[in-house]
Amino acid sequence: MKVKYNLIKTDKNSKARYGTIETNYGTYETPMFMPVGTKATVKMLTPDELYDMHAGIILSNTYHLWLRPGEDLIDKAGGLHKFMNYNGPILTDCGGFQVFSLVKNKKDISEEGVKFKSHIDGKNLFLTPEKSIEIQNKLDSDIAMSFDECPPASASHEYLENSVRRTLRWAERGKKVHSNPRQALFGIVQGGAYEDLRKLSATETVKMNFDGYSIGGVANDGESKEDMYKAIDYSIPYLPEDKLRYLMGVGEPVDLLEGVIRGVDLFDCVLSTRIARHGNAFTRNGKINIKNLKWREDFTPIEEDCDCYTCRNFTKAYIRHLIQSQEGLGPRLLSIHNSRFLIKMMEEIREAIKNDSLLEYKEEFLRKYNGESNEES
Amino acid sequence: MKVKYNLIKTDKNSKARYGTIETNYGTYETPMFMPVGTKATVKMLTPDELYDMHAGIILSNTYHLWLRPGEDLIDKAGGLHKFMNYNGPILTDCGGFQVFSLVKNKKDISEEGVKFKSHIDGKNLFLTPEKSIEIQNKLDSDIAMSFDECPPASASHEYLENSVRRTLRWAERGKKVHSNPRQALFGIVQGGAYEDLRKLSATETVKMNFDGYSIGGVANDGESKEDMYKAIDYSIPYLPEDKLRYLMGVGEPVDLLEGVIRGVDLFDCVLSTRIARHGNAFTRNGKINIKNLKWREDFTPIEEDCDCYTCRNFTKAYIRHLIQSQEGLGPRLLSIHNSRFLIKMMEEIREAIKNDSLLEYKEEFLRKYNGESNEES
Repeated sequence: MKVKYNLIKTDKNSKARYGTIETNYGTYETPMFMPVGTKATVKMLTPDELYDMHAGIILSNTYHLWLRPGEDLIDKAGGLHKFMNYNGPILTDCGGFQVFSLVKNKKDISEEGVKFKSHIDGKNLFLTPEKSIEIQNKLDSDIAMSFDECPPASASHEYLENSVRRTLRWAERGKKVHSNPRQALFGIVQGGAYEDLRKLSATETVKMNFDGYSIGGVANDGESKEDMYKAIDYSIPYLPEDKLRYLMGVGEPVDLLEGVIRGVDLFDCVLSTRIARHGNAFTRNGKINIKNLKWREDFTPIEEDCDCYTCRNFTKAYIRHLIQSQEGLGPRLLSIHNSRFLIKMMEEIREAIKNDSLLEYKEEFLRKYNGESNEES
Repeated sequence: MKVKYNLIKTDKNSKARYGTIETNYGTYETPMFMPVGTKATVKMLTPDELYDMHAGIILSNTYHLWLRPGEDLIDKAGGLHKFMNYNGPILTDCGGFQVFSLVKNKKDISEEGVKFKSHIDGKNLFLTPEKSIEIQNKLDSDIAMSFDECPPASASHEYLENSVRRTLRWAERGKKVHSNPRQALFGIVQGGAYEDLRKLSATETVKMNFDGYSIGGVANDGESKEDMYKAIDYSIPYLPEDKLRYLMGVGEPVDLLEGVIRGVDLFDCVLSTRIARHGNAFTRNGKINIKNLKWREDFTPIEEDCDCYTCRNFTKAYIRHLIQSQEGLGPRLLSIHNSRFLIKMMEEIREAIKNDSLLEYKEEFLRKYNGESNEES
């Protein structure tokens, strides 16, 4: 079956929605944060560690898996779930975000598709809307994404309008070749921070009747938070109530809150594992950097009341030692904590929506989170 | 309490011994292989993964912990067990092996101790027999090792004789300052591949009445297997039956077998985790390199009948992808398999000693293990 979204309750004081998503791997509550497993692995972690932190859907990257090990190999393995042994739902992106970051010359973007060089061996490659969907069909993810153009944050209204119209044509082309009966296909709304373009993109995409919708173009380098919130506000009113809404590439705690309040159900971000590799950890009092000398003799967990594996078993002093010594267990333990932090936060957000107390929750959360100076480095 | 060795049964056809070792963290069977946790972490792995693979004693390195995070910090944490949250017995080495590898000039080795530069920041450091024991006392390991000189494989009989006599004086000095009532202290037998020197070293070391004995100087670069076996054969006859015998730095499967047959009870080696980082895995049919193209579409575990976490959950094709993609989960999964491989092998060796079938086990094991070409790279 394809994933099915059920709206259960809307917050009285915002557009936040509490719901469930039924998948081939069980039913999960939304809003939800998805850990990112770029190359068929959430960096350093096993599937068991993902279950233990109550992860639901995870995201994997079509571009990376296309290049290595290749969609045919994963198909032969029985699909991405079997290949990586993840017994939960998986969403694959369309590859656009990575591919457009590799384009050297604007003329390499044509109506047909995108020409670029592999980041592994420099080989010339060409990705089209059809190819993206065909790869995702073979990966056998639970949710596939339409191939979209990802313009830079600095793109003009004129460029974006053409881009939005091309993305609509690409969405149509991808939909035609989509052939995996147990895989949902989501459309992507683009249009920068322009109200008219978001409306155009959302309205026309929804007309194609996708299984869900995502809001893209908000996680580019140089994108301001203000523009991100505008992009959401300008898109949401045109998206149907009975389909999942996914904000791509966003995972800062404040943005999860702002996104949910604006009506978003699903988020993904590499942040929780990426900052871990630099020794950073989320806490209720803001991000901390475990390399900071002040943690040297701190024999308490990162957070006393955190239920993650890391906090149940290890101290800041020990994790600091691991990071200082460049031991792989360090980033691994921080990745577990950081991912669980965001997943737990979403659990609390869902409770708050049920109780119509989300705005209070947000205020309280941000008061603490922004209360101390941010240590991240 | 200090560790206590109980000899239960000797093999009818060799010097192999089956016994148990009682520790503050439970009783374990010997012969035993110890995974190495150099910097208070078996690379990539959690204590839970060590319990799951039925690890017993693990080894940690005094030199590395002295430099970072420092023995005082670990003391403040409540000792090494609490610091790294390992609820099993720990043996610490004396630091000699690392320190002697850092000596640039022979005149930096004096009767008092060894002068060398830190591998981290080049700072001048000085390690003495007393200092080594004091550090280990603070680390609060279950077994501490006497500080010994580790001469190179090429050392002459004359050099080695002086070295053995100095190591005896150093053992005496270390024993005098040893003050941790729950920590056993082992003596180290040196003497290269010379029968007279091994006899001298073993006899004089045993006179000092240590809690156990190790055979050192067999894992240097350039040391031949023949010399290693000689070193064991020339040492064992002079070691008491009621104390544990530990062969330092040895972990190739064939050497575990040869060591046990010669009367060794305990082994350690970084091999199981080090080869993992290069994509190598132990199998009954010899080492394989998972990067080999022939595993690309192999959707079976590294070993069908292996009970390790990795083989229970992942295929060669997937692990190959992880290693090719330089994903940390790859070395992690191979480290689990390789360590479990050696631990499982020791379980089988113990059964074989109980059944007086160790020589047959060895023949059968080596026939398979050497049967296929070795793929390691």
